[in-house]
Amino acid sequence: MNYKMMGRFFGVILCLESIFMLPAFIIALADKTGRVALGFGLTALICALLGALLLILCRGAKSDFFAKEGLVCVGLSWILLCLFGALPLFIGDDIPSYIDALFEMVSGFTTTGASICPNVEALSRATLYWRSFSHWIGGMGVLVFVMALIPVGGKSEGFTMHLLRAETTGPNSQKLVPRMRQTAIILYLVYVALTLLCFIFLVFDMPAFDAFCTSLGTAGTGGFGVRNDSLASYSPYAQTVTAVFMILFGVNFSIFYLILLRNFLGVLRDEELRLYLSIVGGATLLITLNIRTLYGTLGEALRHAFFQVSSIITTTGFATADFDLWPSFSKAILIFLMIVGGCAGSTAGGLKCARLLLLSKSFIRNIGRVQNPQKVAVIRINKKPVDEKLVTATSAYLCAYLLIALVSFLLISIDGFSVTTNISSVLACFNNVGPGLEAVGPTRNYSAFSDFSKVVLILDMLAGRLEIFPILALFSTKAFRRG
Amino acid sequence: MNYKMMGRFFGVILCLESIFMLPAFIIALADKTGRVALGFGLTALICALLGALLLILCRGAKSDFFAKEGLVCVGLSWILLCLFGALPLFIGDDIPSYIDALFEMVSGFTTTGASICPNVEALSRATLYWRSFSHWIGGMGVLVFVMALIPVGGKSEGFTMHLLRAETTGPNSQKLVPRMRQTAIILYLVYVALTLLCFIFLVFDMPAFDAFCTSLGTAGTGGFGVRNDSLASYSPYAQTVTAVFMILFGVNFSIFYLILLRNFLGVLRDEELRLYLSIVGGATLLITLNIRTLYGTLGEALRHAFFQVSSIITTTGFATADFDLWPSFSKAILIFLMIVGGCAGSTAGGLKCARLLLLSKSFIRNIGRVQNPQKVAVIRINKKPVDEKLVTATSAYLCAYLLIALVSFLLISIDGFSVTTNISSVLACFNNVGPGLEAVGPTRNYSAFSDFSKVVLILDMLAGRLEIFPILALFSTKAFRRG
Repeated sequence: MNYKMMGRFFGVILCLESIFMLPAFIIALADKTGRVALGFGLTALICALLGALLLILCRGAKSDFFAKEGLVCVGLSWILLCLFGALPLFIGDDIPSYIDALFEMVSGFTTTGASICPNVEALSRATLYWRSFSHWIGGMGVLVFVMALIPVGGKSEGFTMHLLRAETTGPNSQKLVPRMRQTAIILYLVYVALTLLCFIFLVFDMPAFDAFCTSLGTAGTGGFGVRNDSLASYSPYAQTVTAVFMILFGVNFSIFYLILLRNFLGVLRDEELRLYLSIVGGATLLITLNIRTLYGTLGEALRHAFFQVSSIITTTGFATADFDLWPSFSKAILIFLMIVGGCAGSTAGGLKCARLLLLSKSFIRNIGRVQNPQKVAVIRINKKPVDEKLVTATSAYLCAYLLIALVSFLLISIDGFSVTTNISSVLACFNNVGPGLEAVGPTRNYSAFSDFSKVVLILDMLAGRLEIFPILALFSTKAFRRG
Repeated sequence: MNYKMMGRFFGVILCLESIFMLPAFIIALADKTGRVALGFGLTALICALLGALLLILCRGAKSDFFAKEGLVCVGLSWILLCLFGALPLFIGDDIPSYIDALFEMVSGFTTTGASICPNVEALSRATLYWRSFSHWIGGMGVLVFVMALIPVGGKSEGFTMHLLRAETTGPNSQKLVPRMRQTAIILYLVYVALTLLCFIFLVFDMPAFDAFCTSLGTAGTGGFGVRNDSLASYSPYAQTVTAVFMILFGVNFSIFYLILLRNFLGVLRDEELRLYLSIVGGATLLITLNIRTLYGTLGEALRHAFFQVSSIITTTGFATADFDLWPSFSKAILIFLMIVGGCAGSTAGGLKCARLLLLSKSFIRNIGRVQNPQKVAVIRINKKPVDEKLVTATSAYLCAYLLIALVSFLLISIDGFSVTTNISSVLACFNNVGPGLEAVGPTRNYSAFSDFSKVVLILDMLAGRLEIFPILALFSTKAFRRG
C-alpha cells in the first residue's frame, strides 16, 4: 500500500474542499447569517490546515499505484469529503443532528438528492448553495476534477487510470484520448459548458440563485431543490428545460465528444444511447396514457410524465408532481426506471443502460446456449465483440447489487415503515435517485428513519455512486495489508 | 428435433394423467357430485385416448435425444399436464372460468399453492384431492416419475439425463447412482416414504382426508389446504408436525440418501444444509422477537414464527397466522425467505440455498479480485472446487430471474393494485410460494387479478418451477427448427 501517495491525495482533496466552501462562506457573510458563516469558515480552515499538513507530511511519495490502492483511495476520499462537508451544516445549525447533516451531504455528493429536511426554504442560502454544489462536483467526480486540474500523480498513467475507473460510472470506462489526464479535462470542459447552457436557459424564467442551484442539481443529476415543492411551482418552460437537460446529463459524455468531433454516425449508431432514448420515449408514452385522466389536458399529462421519467431515469429526483399519487402502473414504470438509470459515463446513477443492454444480450444468448451448448456466440455492442470478462463482471455486479439491496431492505425494515416505503427507500438511495414512494415520496423526506437506518442508507448511496466495489474494499482488511 | 420421441413421451404423460385422475373420479362418484364426476371421468377418458393415439402414432422412435429437446419436452409436458388438469375443475363447475381453473392447476403442479378460490371449503372433495395430488406429483416432478416407472427412453442415458436435469431443481443435479433411472427410483422411494410418515403423524390429530391432502401439500411444498384458514384451525401439534415436515421436504433429497447410506459425516458437512438450517433458525429467532407482543406467550409467538418461516422458505405457503398483519421487519424477512427458497434437489422453489451459497462466495471473491486482479481464487463448496462454468451459469440465472421478475411486475401493475401487492404477487408466484402480502396475503386470494395478469403469473409459476430455461425455450423459434 502506497500510503504516502494516498496521503498526498487526501491532502489535495481537503484543500479543494476548503476552496469549494469559500463561496458558501461569502454567501453566508453577505446574508449576515453569522452562525452559518462560522460553520463554513471554520470547516474551510480545518480542511485547509489538515490538507496542507498531509501534503507536507507525505512529500516525496513514490508514484507506483495499484488497483486496490485506487479503490481504497476513491472510497476514503469520498467519505472524507462527506464527513467534512457535513460539518458546516451541523455547526451552522441548519441541520442540528450530525448524522442528519452527514445523510444530507452524502446524498449531495453522491447526487442522490434524498433529504432529511422537512422545510428546505428555511435553510440558509449558503447551505442551499453547498447542497447543490455538492451535486455538481459529485456528479462528474471529485477525483476526476483533481486529475483535470493537478498532475498529482506525476507521469503515472496507472494512478490516474485506476482512479478514473473507480470513480466514473458504467461497466467500461473509455478513454476518449490516449492520455488519462486529457480525458479528464475534456470531460470537465463539456460538463462546465453544458451546465452553463442550462443556467442560461433557466435564468430567463427563474431568480438567478434558483437557476444556479437548479442547474448544478440538474448537471449532477442530483435533485436537491431550493423550494419545498421541488420544481412544481416553476413555469412549464423552466420545467421542460430542466427535463431536457436532465436527459442530456444522463447521456454518456463520450457521445458529446463524438458530437464535437462531428462523428454523427457514431452517435446515431450508439446502442446504449438508442436504448436509453427508447426507454425514455416508451416510459413517457405509457405514463401519459396511464395518468391522462388525472390532469386537465393531454399536454399537461405529457409534460408531467416526461418530467418525472426524465428525472427518475437520470436518477435526479426533481419532481413537478406527486407521483406517489399516480396509478400503480406508472409507479411500477418509475421503479423500473430507478433501477435502470442513465447511460454509463454520465452523471446519472442506477444500473446504467449499458449494463442492461449487456445483460439482455447475455440473457438471450443463454437461452440459445441451453438449447445448443456447443455453439459459440459472441456478444456484440456497437458491432464490436464484447470481452467475456466484461459479461461475467456485469453479471457479478448485478448479483452484488441484489445482495446489498436485499440486506439493506432487511436492515431498514426494523424501523417498521411499510414494505413499499422500505423497498423504494433502498432503491432510491442505492440508485442515487432521491425520492421514493409512500413515506419517502416526492413530497416527503427521510427524517423519520432511525439513525441506524440512515447509516445503512448512507452506505447504500456511497456504494451506488461508486458502483459498489470501492466501498466494499474499505470493509476488507486485506486492502490495508502492507505489500 | 426428435418429434417421434417427444410424441411418445407426451403420450405417456397423458396416459399417466388419466390414471392420476381416477381417484378423483371415484371420490366424486362416492360423494354423488355428478357434474364433478363427469368432469374427471370425461377428462380422464380424453387423456387416455389422446395418450394412446400418440403412443401408437409415434412407434419406432429413435432414442437419440439432445439438450434442446429435453428442455422443450419438459416445458411442453408441464403445459399439457396443466391444460388437461384444469379441465375437470372447469367442466365440473368447481371453478367456472377456464383461465381461473388453469391458474389453480398451474399453481398446483408447480407447487405454488396460490389460489383463486375465495371459499376452498365449497369445493368438492374430488377437486380438493386433485389440487393436493397435483402438488405431490409436481413436487418431485412428473417426468422423474415417468422415468422411475417406465424405461421409456430405452437404454438412452442422454434422454433421461436431459429430462432429469431440466426438471429437478438447483444449479447442479447430482446423480445419486451411476444410472439415471435408478436415481429417479431412489428419489421417489424416499419421497413416498417421507410422505407416508407425514400422513401417519398427522392422521392422529386430523380427519383422514385432511391429513392425506395436507401431507401431499407438505411433501410437494405446495400449500393448497382444504380449509379456508389454511392450517390455522388445526391443533398446535398438527401445525408443528407440518412445520417440521415442510423443513424436511425443503432439504436436498441426496441428504436422505446419505442418511440411508449412514454417511452422517457427509450430512453434517454439507454446506447448503448448514446454510439452510441457519437461515431457518435465524429467521425464526428474529421473527419471534419481533412479533412476541402480538401473541399471548413467547411459546405461541415461537410456534407461529417457526411455522411461517418453515412454510415460506420451503415455498409451501401454508399459514397459521396472517403474517400480512405482522410488523414490517418480519414481513421483510419473509420476503427474503421467499427469494431464497429451500435446498437444491428438494421439492421447494425459490432461488435455492445452493445458489445463494455460490453467489455469496463469488461475491466475496469478487471483492478480493477487484483489489488484486491477478490472483486466481477457486470457489469451494463442501471442500470441492466448483467449476467456473457453474459460477457463470448461476450469475446468469440470477440475472434472468431478475429480468423476468421486473417485467412481470411491470405487466401485472396494469391492474392497479398496490406496489407491495404486485411485488409480492410476482415473488410469491415466481418462487412458487403462494401467498404474498396485502391483496394477496395469506387470508386473501388471486381472484381479483385480470385474466391478463393471471396468464403472466401462470408463466411465472411455470418458469419458477422449471427454473426459467425450459419455459423460455418454448418461446424460441430455433427450438422447433429441424435438425
